[in-house]
Amino acid sequence: MPHPLREARSWWGWGASHEELSERETEALVARVQALLPAHDFSDHAPPNPEALPIPSARVSAPGSLVATASDDPVDRLSHARGKAFRDVIRNLHGDVSSVPDLVLRPRNEQDIVDVLDWCSSAAIAVIPYGGGSSVVGGVEPRFDGPAVSLDLVHLNQVLEIDDVSRAARVQAGIYGPALEDQLRPEGLTLRHFPQSFAYSTLGGWLATRAGGHFATLYTHIDDLTESLRVVTPAGVSESRRLPGSGAGPSPDRMFLGSEGILGVITEAWMRVQNRPKWQVTASITFETYAAAVAATRAIAQSGLYPANCRLLDPAEAFINAGVSTTGGLLIIAFESADHPVDAWLNRAIDIATSHRGQVAAKNPASRTGRDKSTGDSAAAWKSSFLRMPYQRDALARRSMIVETFETACTWDNFERFHAAVTSAANTALAEVCGGGVVTCRFTHVYPDGPAPYYGIYAPGRWGSSLAQWDDIKAAVSEVINACGGTITHHHAVGRDHRPWYDRQRPEPFAAALAAAKSALDPAAILNPGVLIPTVG
Amino acid sequence: MPHPLREARSWWGWGASHEELSERETEALVARVQALLPAHDFSDHAPPNPEALPIPSARVSAPGSLVATASDDPVDRLSHARGKAFRDVIRNLHGDVSSVPDLVLRPRNEQDIVDVLDWCSSAAIAVIPYGGGSSVVGGVEPRFDGPAVSLDLVHLNQVLEIDDVSRAARVQAGIYGPALEDQLRPEGLTLRHFPQSFAYSTLGGWLATRAGGHFATLYTHIDDLTESLRVVTPAGVSESRRLPGSGAGPSPDRMFLGSEGILGVITEAWMRVQNRPKWQVTASITFETYAAAVAATRAIAQSGLYPANCRLLDPAEAFINAGVSTTGGLLIIAFESADHPVDAWLNRAIDIATSHRGQVAAKNPASRTGRDKSTGDSAAAWKSSFLRMPYQRDALARRSMIVETFETACTWDNFERFHAAVTSAANTALAEVCGGGVVTCRFTHVYPDGPAPYYGIYAPGRWGSSLAQWDDIKAAVSEVINACGGTITHHHAVGRDHRPWYDRQRPEPFAAALAAAKSALDPAAILNPGVLIPTVG
Repeated sequence: MPHPLREARSWWGWGASHEELSERETEALVARVQALLPAHDFSDHAPPNPEALPIPSARVSAPGSLVATASDDPVDRLSHARGKAFRDVIRNLHGDVSSVPDLVLRPRNEQDIVDVLDWCSSAAIAVIPYGGGSSVVGGVEPRFDGPAVSLDLVHLNQVLEIDDVSRAARVQAGIYGPALEDQLRPEGLTLRHFPQSFAYSTLGGWLATRAGGHFATLYTHIDDLTESLRVVTPAGVSESRRLPGSGAGPSPDRMFLGSEGILGVITEAWMRVQNRPKWQVTASITFETYAAAVAATRAIAQSGLYPANCRLLDPAEAFINAGVSTTGGLLIIAFESADHPVDAWLNRAIDIATSHRGQVAAKNPASRTGRDKSTGDSAAAWKSSFLRMPYQRDALARRSMIVETFETACTWDNFERFHAAVTSAANTALAEVCGGGVVTCRFTHVYPDGPAPYYGIYAPGRWGSSLAQWDDIKAAVSEVINACGGTITHHHAVGRDHRPWYDRQRPEPFAAALAAAKSALDPAAILNPGVLIPTVG
Repeated sequence: MPHPLREARSWWGWGASHEELSERETEALVARVQALLPAHDFSDHAPPNPEALPIPSARVSAPGSLVATASDDPVDRLSHARGKAFRDVIRNLHGDVSSVPDLVLRPRNEQDIVDVLDWCSSAAIAVIPYGGGSSVVGGVEPRFDGPAVSLDLVHLNQVLEIDDVSRAARVQAGIYGPALEDQLRPEGLTLRHFPQSFAYSTLGGWLATRAGGHFATLYTHIDDLTESLRVVTPAGVSESRRLPGSGAGPSPDRMFLGSEGILGVITEAWMRVQNRPKWQVTASITFETYAAAVAATRAIAQSGLYPANCRLLDPAEAFINAGVSTTGGLLIIAFESADHPVDAWLNRAIDIATSHRGQVAAKNPASRTGRDKSTGDSAAAWKSSFLRMPYQRDALARRSMIVETFETACTWDNFERFHAAVTSAANTALAEVCGGGVVTCRFTHVYPDGPAPYYGIYAPGRWGSSLAQWDDIKAAVSEVINACGGTITHHHAVGRDHRPWYDRQRPEPFAAALAAAKSALDPAAILNPGVLIPTVG
């Protein structure tokens, strides 16, 4: 039977079907892109009817107590076959039905998860932990032979306990971002972790992939918001102690954070939450040269001010997504606090920016305000655009455009050379593969020792070839990222797609240690095979 | 031959012999304690002549190229036999010569370390990585049968490279705190990591034990200051990439941070350094009740102000070590910055404290100042006392006093119950074992979700029994820390002494994973056997 929860979700693209671009929005978007690429064929390729696709039958069926958790509905299984990257969307649009899991299991509780791991360990069935399915790196795709189940934690969706003295909450891993915030809001609390996927991703997914939040500095990574973890492994349940800090051996939590489902299934976490911000100030600053913009951003990142936002958009990104024309870039700075006005902080950040010849384009006065207030400036334009980007990507993918991103991090001393090499590789690949295209860059996070650049690609593809075209572009760029000392992923995770470069990036002895740890926890090697480390033979 | 570097160091106690308390300081200290404990026997028990002790001969000798790195000098080996805990000092004072390593090896370079691991792996000789030897948890002691070498990294003592754009430095692991700061200072940089052991501990030791710095919030732990690590393991060299942030799998660095020498020998690290602070402001605030002091401290920890210092001394600690009489406690708050005046930050923190009925006892005006300027108030008194504490401990240990500390962390909601239970257990143990004594508490670090309480013990022991007395007190207190949900160590590490409680604290599946990782990296199980996990049989 189809699962009721899947009805609202798009089986082929991002998010919810009812939130897709409207016809008018689509027309406007296409018109904007068409102005830049008049020769491109913008014919719409609508998604196929999933009911009509030749989805292979399930090769296994759930035993005993797990029957009630299992769905063998073909469309349900298809919608769990892959994540939400451009390459996933394209394959869906083409009716590709490879790598469909045999069953979708929706455990009702932790015991069901224990039972699933026991059953699958004894029956040699792969288990792919599944949160919101928003992976963009092939992290939830059974891209291997042999039977597989997708373990969808959707029913583990509660905030179980709130400790408002320590400001922490015990939360089930399958909860989606909005539900988590809804359950914290009555206590005046927030996790304040807002990845772009927020609406369609879960706490467990954030933890398993070391998600980066929306904020640019300080406590934004899910790693730092984690007080303790509860993880069901085939070898038993691992639960760390609630501690604000500890020096007792290597951190158990840091082993599971980023383990992408290969070591166990995260079922619960105590998360560090915060009082909801009362003061929020923001400013937008333009620069004459990109070098000056980068220097100003670095100075702010090293100032000890720790802005909530410090997002540098390069001129292309500023133009496309914030509607701002600038020769050097647009820097959006924000500070917020639940405790005190932050004008002094913003003013100092602006001083730093203007000392690098930045021009203040907009500045909001100090306000006691919620997060949702529209600010009516370029920062707000950018934010609204940010949340609609995945839907725009889907609308353009249907029209043979290649719209995708890649993200990384490097040290400041390396950035100029790194950025030039990556941009050049991307532009060369676009020219060779698509005859041209646009490469944009923004910093999603800034650290005292370096930025996390996030690149956008917009290029005219050919219907039927756009997947292969993107794979060529991605490979060319990834080679350069790797060769120039960047990380193959700052916050999108490794999954299966980043493996070739991850394998060269991580130290070999660490890979051996991780494989050994996996063998100890998952002796039957059922958990998410092929992710992070080679499948054990 | 004795090694020239050991001459200045005390073989039996803390630090350097010439920095021990002077006769006058000792007299004054004894007089102060005598006023509290008039019945105690303060007879001095001077350390034995180490040359006269029956130190067992070395059972192994270094091969070929390693001969030049090896010392079999008995006193050199004795001075590497243990760390600098009270229980180490007492054993030294009693001329205990158990657990003396067979050789001290001082590798000249990384190749020597590779050669040592190869030789010891093939010859089944235990290798104990040794930095400053300041362990207080039995971390450097060959407390097992069979031959052992102490691998003293003293020659790996250089800052190799400085990247002043990214503010990072490549540093050899054997460098001591002062030498590291001396080599960074000409560039206007500082690691700003000041554990109490600073003068006599090394970067490698800080990394291997997840050291906590002097600062109370934000970037103070060595973990967060680490950009990348280079580690020699028996299975090969592990070198992580220099990255300001990365989400590519579980962090390789976090596996080695806190590994206490059981997985490999850290030889180099890229560390995040900072511009030296120009502005520094501080205030001392007293409270009528400890509950109010704790509440104020929590509010500041949760304010997002992130003070450099936020050290709450309970009334006993304030009296003994800062000379301040207060019924509720003394809170020392400081802010510092290399970028901007921090008066606004301090003023807000003071507002929070006074809203909890705190009384400002001293406040320094904003100043462009170096760290070393004496501030002439209770904060300064406390700081000066802080650095002399280990020497005072040694002077009192010679006079049969039990002077020792234990440290932990817990969540704020749990603190009142936890602190009452720990204090009660400590007082009960002191009464039973010593007929009385004093227990003090300070917070060394504060987090939004909890404090790191650090307890001091001052009790009259009996010469010849004070080690067993302390072990009884420590065991009683550790049981309660464990039972009440604290960590057995917040920043002193696990070593061998904390194993009984660590084994109950860490999740069992994590221990299995760590043991498997160790087997992969150290198949001959030579590295620091008995630390963190059971010796493989």
